[in-house]
Amino acid sequence: MSKPELLFNELCLHERETSYLKSTLALLEWDQQTKLPKSADDFRSKQITFLAGQIHQRCTDPRRGDMIGELVDSKLAANVNSDTGATIRELKREYDKQVKLPAKLVESLARAASLGQSIWVQARKDNNFKSFAPHLKEIFSLKQEEADALGWEECRYDALLDEYEPGAKTKEVAKVLDDLRVELVPLVAEIAESSVRPPTEILQQTFPIEAQKKFGREASAKIGFDYDRGRLDVTHHPFCTETGPNDCRITTRYDEAFFNTSFFGTLHEAGHGIYEQGLNPEQYGLPLGKYCSLGIHESQSRLWENLVGRSLSFWEYFFPHAKTHFPKTLANVELDEFHQAINHIAPSLIRVEADEATYNLHIIIRFQLEQSMIDGDLSVVDLPEAWNNKYEQFLGIKPPTDTDGVLQDIHWSAGLIGYFSTYSLGNLYASQFFAAAEQALGDLDAMFRKGDFSPLKNWLNLNVHQPGMRLTGPELGRQVTGNDLSHKLLITQLRQKLSPIYGL
Amino acid sequence: MSKPELLFNELCLHERETSYLKSTLALLEWDQQTKLPKSADDFRSKQITFLAGQIHQRCTDPRRGDMIGELVDSKLAANVNSDTGATIRELKREYDKQVKLPAKLVESLARAASLGQSIWVQARKDNNFKSFAPHLKEIFSLKQEEADALGWEECRYDALLDEYEPGAKTKEVAKVLDDLRVELVPLVAEIAESSVRPPTEILQQTFPIEAQKKFGREASAKIGFDYDRGRLDVTHHPFCTETGPNDCRITTRYDEAFFNTSFFGTLHEAGHGIYEQGLNPEQYGLPLGKYCSLGIHESQSRLWENLVGRSLSFWEYFFPHAKTHFPKTLANVELDEFHQAINHIAPSLIRVEADEATYNLHIIIRFQLEQSMIDGDLSVVDLPEAWNNKYEQFLGIKPPTDTDGVLQDIHWSAGLIGYFSTYSLGNLYASQFFAAAEQALGDLDAMFRKGDFSPLKNWLNLNVHQPGMRLTGPELGRQVTGNDLSHKLLITQLRQKLSPIYGL
Repeated sequence: MSKPELLFNELCLHERETSYLKSTLALLEWDQQTKLPKSADDFRSKQITFLAGQIHQRCTDPRRGDMIGELVDSKLAANVNSDTGATIRELKREYDKQVKLPAKLVESLARAASLGQSIWVQARKDNNFKSFAPHLKEIFSLKQEEADALGWEECRYDALLDEYEPGAKTKEVAKVLDDLRVELVPLVAEIAESSVRPPTEILQQTFPIEAQKKFGREASAKIGFDYDRGRLDVTHHPFCTETGPNDCRITTRYDEAFFNTSFFGTLHEAGHGIYEQGLNPEQYGLPLGKYCSLGIHESQSRLWENLVGRSLSFWEYFFPHAKTHFPKTLANVELDEFHQAINHIAPSLIRVEADEATYNLHIIIRFQLEQSMIDGDLSVVDLPEAWNNKYEQFLGIKPPTDTDGVLQDIHWSAGLIGYFSTYSLGNLYASQFFAAAEQALGDLDAMFRKGDFSPLKNWLNLNVHQPGMRLTGPELGRQVTGNDLSHKLLITQLRQKLSPIYGL
Repeated sequence: MSKPELLFNELCLHERETSYLKSTLALLEWDQQTKLPKSADDFRSKQITFLAGQIHQRCTDPRRGDMIGELVDSKLAANVNSDTGATIRELKREYDKQVKLPAKLVESLARAASLGQSIWVQARKDNNFKSFAPHLKEIFSLKQEEADALGWEECRYDALLDEYEPGAKTKEVAKVLDDLRVELVPLVAEIAESSVRPPTEILQQTFPIEAQKKFGREASAKIGFDYDRGRLDVTHHPFCTETGPNDCRITTRYDEAFFNTSFFGTLHEAGHGIYEQGLNPEQYGLPLGKYCSLGIHESQSRLWENLVGRSLSFWEYFFPHAKTHFPKTLANVELDEFHQAINHIAPSLIRVEADEATYNLHIIIRFQLEQSMIDGDLSVVDLPEAWNNKYEQFLGIKPPTDTDGVLQDIHWSAGLIGYFSTYSLGNLYASQFFAAAEQALGDLDAMFRKGDFSPLKNWLNLNVHQPGMRLTGPELGRQVTGNDLSHKLLITQLRQKLSPIYGL
């Protein structure tokens, strides 16, 4: 082996060993959310902090930086999309980020985020934006510092966006989200004006939790979540995590009085899980075995939740099963009504309760506001008014309180800035991937109707999951769909499904 | 602070940090037994091996040895039972052991144990001792090497016993176990000759598992296992582990057709758990916050399982609750019959299914045999015959096959030699602690009858749990009971309970 090859192997071994610690950290966190006894929380925080510190030490080890530096100039890095090239490229990107941030700034951010979250909880409870404003101001100011430390060219927000969506540019994201808004706002308005009111009350009957558990597990297994390589547990805030290449753990929560919460939540997390399970286990711990970006991750959850799980063909297969699981509750419910009800679209104030169409408007509002804040065009004191104006403009409703408005999300208080847009990027990628899959595989609805979800899953495995981080999100999107990211297919798909329901 | 004090603090900090990793390792193992998806086992082994390696590195760090060495000669170590003295004494004992064993021997032992276990599984299945014999020979030979590397004075077996029962001497253990045998054998024979046959069939009816779960949880909580600081899960092989000072996790298994398996198993593990929960959380990760020995640990499980859980007074309180949980099954069962049935005594072949009295004979057989093997007086080829002869001599029955005889336990195949006697030491300590508690607290039966278990639990917390490793097992026994370890109280207590049942 050549010297760069030996060095590359040494570096990869180091990464794999770090992955033992990272996946163990993920287990500590999963257990904390799902199984930890009440009084054990303090010690768990100490275990997590200590292990995170050990991982940070390994990752910022100057010897690692030297190895990466040497490899960047070697022939192994010549083609940035080759196995070795992509691996070196991504390890360098990650290492540079970690060493670019001054320790003091990292500490300040951690402290501000921790304090910010507890202040936010109280402020939200008290509907008191003023008490939160100084902390939010500090967080945004620290995030500006972070962006400057990381470096940027076109605009400061790029640096923060890159954390979650490597390779994406603010300008392009802003453009595609604004295109989406221009067509979504009238679509939502048309629906609001329609005389059709889906019978949503049928989803708000009694759905016994044990039956929900069985049905959710059955459906998630059927679409391709592998329970030999994963688990499903209960948490208040659902999530997906992985604690090894064959160990993906998703969670959901159950509401006996509302069907959607757990069922669509489980499909959503199973979509994330199918992505994790579709990554190359041989590359576990290395960039080629890691998810591409948050937007691509979200595309997989949204695709299974909405494009598959809210389609008529999905329910042509699953509705008889639903009737078996909820024989009393669904005795007098027809498939068409049920399909209408799960596709109810209406402007609302709270993002996490929004439907699949209006959800994007909630995101666009946050994206535009946080971008203005980071670029310095909007000040914290003016934020609630700006928020409310945008809600009125995009959704036609105005939050009566800040609790139902600018104070509703945890993200900003936790320093997660640049994150929101990945939710809508996920919806856009999902629609384009889905269309590309249909083009490649033929009539997906015909397959769903028969309960055959494996062609779609296998196509996603091969085209979207297997590349890992070989390409950036935008590159992957172009490679898989032949097109740049665009709002068009999402609008087309929404109109196709919603027009017959609402008589548009 | 003086220099030794500064050094002592530094050493303790290092220990506490190591405890974050050790408890995390315990979580990886707990999760492996209880929650891990089927296909995730390989990677979990890698995580465990890596973390164990990191811990070993920390523990054998020469800098740590230097610190301990310096402290041993300081005034802080002058009194070996003071806070600092006991801490230094135990850290030194542990460090010395770890550095005394050559890395090559540790590796050979790990490999032999791993291979030995899989060969044993097959040999047991095939009733083929011969195929296991060469591996067992190697394991015993490596354990002899280990004993010699660790060093010993009176006999080689001392070195191995010290691993599980620090401070105990083979000669003394052999004496007390032989005294016990001399009185147990005739007691068991008397019972076998009695015309009384407890109605054990009432325990082999249908006990719905959900009701067993509720009842087991209720009873374990009532005797003092704190579910805010612990959990109860299901595994095939029940165990107790801790993953933090406020996080003790026990497991059990359920057999719908047999009451005892989960109920007494849960009491047993809860007893271990109450001990762990009774250790000083401020000293977590340090010797003063660690269990004293396996024998002392076992004394706590046996005390709650047998001395409390099989007493008439316990069931005077709990039997009405049992009737509530199993209304149909226990409808026509009387308290007295039930109490007789759970105290059924009869010689049997399999240790893990043995009753509280004959169990000790199973242990004594193993203790005597492994001691002879380590001392070189018995060879592997003669082991099955020696085993069978002892069963005939002590229990009056002869195993029809090696599967039901010498091949029944996993311990030797896993290199656990010196371990068995701690089970019976536990029974002996339990009987002496129980008698001491009764002397201090008055009529325990009267308390149990009212469901009041906290005086006993609190007494154990204070006298047995809080000292941690301040004293060795034999020292703790003497401090708490005023006497050396002896078989007498165990025989007295057994006779007291069993005489009215069997009309002895």
